[in-house]
Amino acid sequence: MNEIGFIGLGLLGFPMATNLLEAGHSLRVYNRTASKVDPLIARGAKLATSPADAITSGGIVASVVWDDAALESIVLSDGFLEKLGKGGVHISMSTVSPEAARRIAKMHEDRGCSYVEAPVFGRPEAAVARQLWIPVSGAKAAKDRVRTVLEAIGAKGIFDFGEAAGAAVAVKIAGNFLMFAATRSMIEAFAMAEKNGADAHALLHMLTTTLFPSPIYQNYGRRIADKLPAFESPIPEKDMGLFKKTAEQVGAPTQIVDRLLEILKT
Amino acid sequence: MNEIGFIGLGLLGFPMATNLLEAGHSLRVYNRTASKVDPLIARGAKLATSPADAITSGGIVASVVWDDAALESIVLSDGFLEKLGKGGVHISMSTVSPEAARRIAKMHEDRGCSYVEAPVFGRPEAAVARQLWIPVSGAKAAKDRVRTVLEAIGAKGIFDFGEAAGAAVAVKIAGNFLMFAATRSMIEAFAMAEKNGADAHALLHMLTTTLFPSPIYQNYGRRIADKLPAFESPIPEKDMGLFKKTAEQVGAPTQIVDRLLEILKT
Repeated sequence: MNEIGFIGLGLLGFPMATNLLEAGHSLRVYNRTASKVDPLIARGAKLATSPADAITSGGIVASVVWDDAALESIVLSDGFLEKLGKGGVHISMSTVSPEAARRIAKMHEDRGCSYVEAPVFGRPEAAVARQLWIPVSGAKAAKDRVRTVLEAIGAKGIFDFGEAAGAAVAVKIAGNFLMFAATRSMIEAFAMAEKNGADAHALLHMLTTTLFPSPIYQNYGRRIADKLPAFESPIPEKDMGLFKKTAEQVGAPTQIVDRLLEILKT
Repeated sequence: MNEIGFIGLGLLGFPMATNLLEAGHSLRVYNRTASKVDPLIARGAKLATSPADAITSGGIVASVVWDDAALESIVLSDGFLEKLGKGGVHISMSTVSPEAARRIAKMHEDRGCSYVEAPVFGRPEAAVARQLWIPVSGAKAAKDRVRTVLEAIGAKGIFDFGEAAGAAVAVKIAGNFLMFAATRSMIEAFAMAEKNGADAHALLHMLTTTLFPSPIYQNYGRRIADKLPAFESPIPEKDMGLFKKTAEQVGAPTQIVDRLLEILKT
């Protein structure tokens, strides 16, 4: 198999790159903080000294970074698009704005290469366990070409959202919004019910075996019933901000997300 | 079997009473609008001319009415508690406030009879299909006694929330709040994603096979994807008001429910 480039070895990227190595792929890996790469080098990955250096011309490069600015800085870094070149495919797995996705997809198109959005639903443990759910959008031929790579990365399910740039990241942002809205709603529901004499674990059991047999309600509901913080990461704040900005750009309603952002600020 | 009293033959009460008749129970039925009773009389139920007239002393009476005031007017109607008397059990299936439940439970206790809360999750179709989920609270002996009645009424699952008055209705209000919050959140999520190029039915398919394999997300999500109104009843407004009032009484947070009530008013 040809070498695959992998850029961004954070909490999600690291286990995803490890999965690719375990599936027998050759990797060239790049991370802004080089030390994170060491365990992968020890397992046979090659060290890239820049984003462009991770790329094989006409090949496949995957990236998982924090936000629009980080992704844009990679795509605009010296030689990245030139080296990817005609026929090359960039699998972009970051949760970025649909607006940035459209702009960045166009840059790829202008160079004859393809931009496939493949943001990831799943926590780092799910990446390790190859239980990721991945919505994808982009040119059909490019999606077909990278399907086995996404499977090797850890996809339990791949969901096709057509060719439009921005569609898959919009789905990812919508999903994160629904998760956070459900969790904040549970916090409110559990507090009211408990203070009226209902046991929180009995409530969780009922909800998750009737109306809401969903891993989101199960996992976050258990934390709420156990009196643990539901979230311990900056992701909700980032993604609710992305949702609001994106909804406003397209004239979609924002009443719930506005309230979630207010709650996050308190 | 002894006669069971059944009060309130609305959209839920009617199929529930029908289920009891079909299970072989003898019924004495009362409804404020007497004509609704006719089809049940034709199937062998006896007509009660007042709430108290539906009761066998020391027996079981079930009620399903709209709100606190309707339930209170039944319990305080001439002879109701006196006739129910020592050992009698009132199965209260209405969605009332926990505060009213505690007050009304006390009235029963003072007369030596039992008040079992058994509000119902499920639409009228679910009542017909005997697919109701029923949280219960109240004295253990009374709950044990009415269990087979609840099963005959159409319970697919019965969930015990202990002995405290108010607990089961708090669970019911919490569940309705979570349903409405999830549905309003889906409206916002679907609008944003669709306007960014994601197909609503593809989004629904992904969500309900991954993060949210829940009948609530499936049923209301399908209506949203089909561009149908998610709700067509006054229940959300009533129950969000109940949730807010109850949460405020116990000092629980109300940020999400406040926003849902604002949305309902627009």
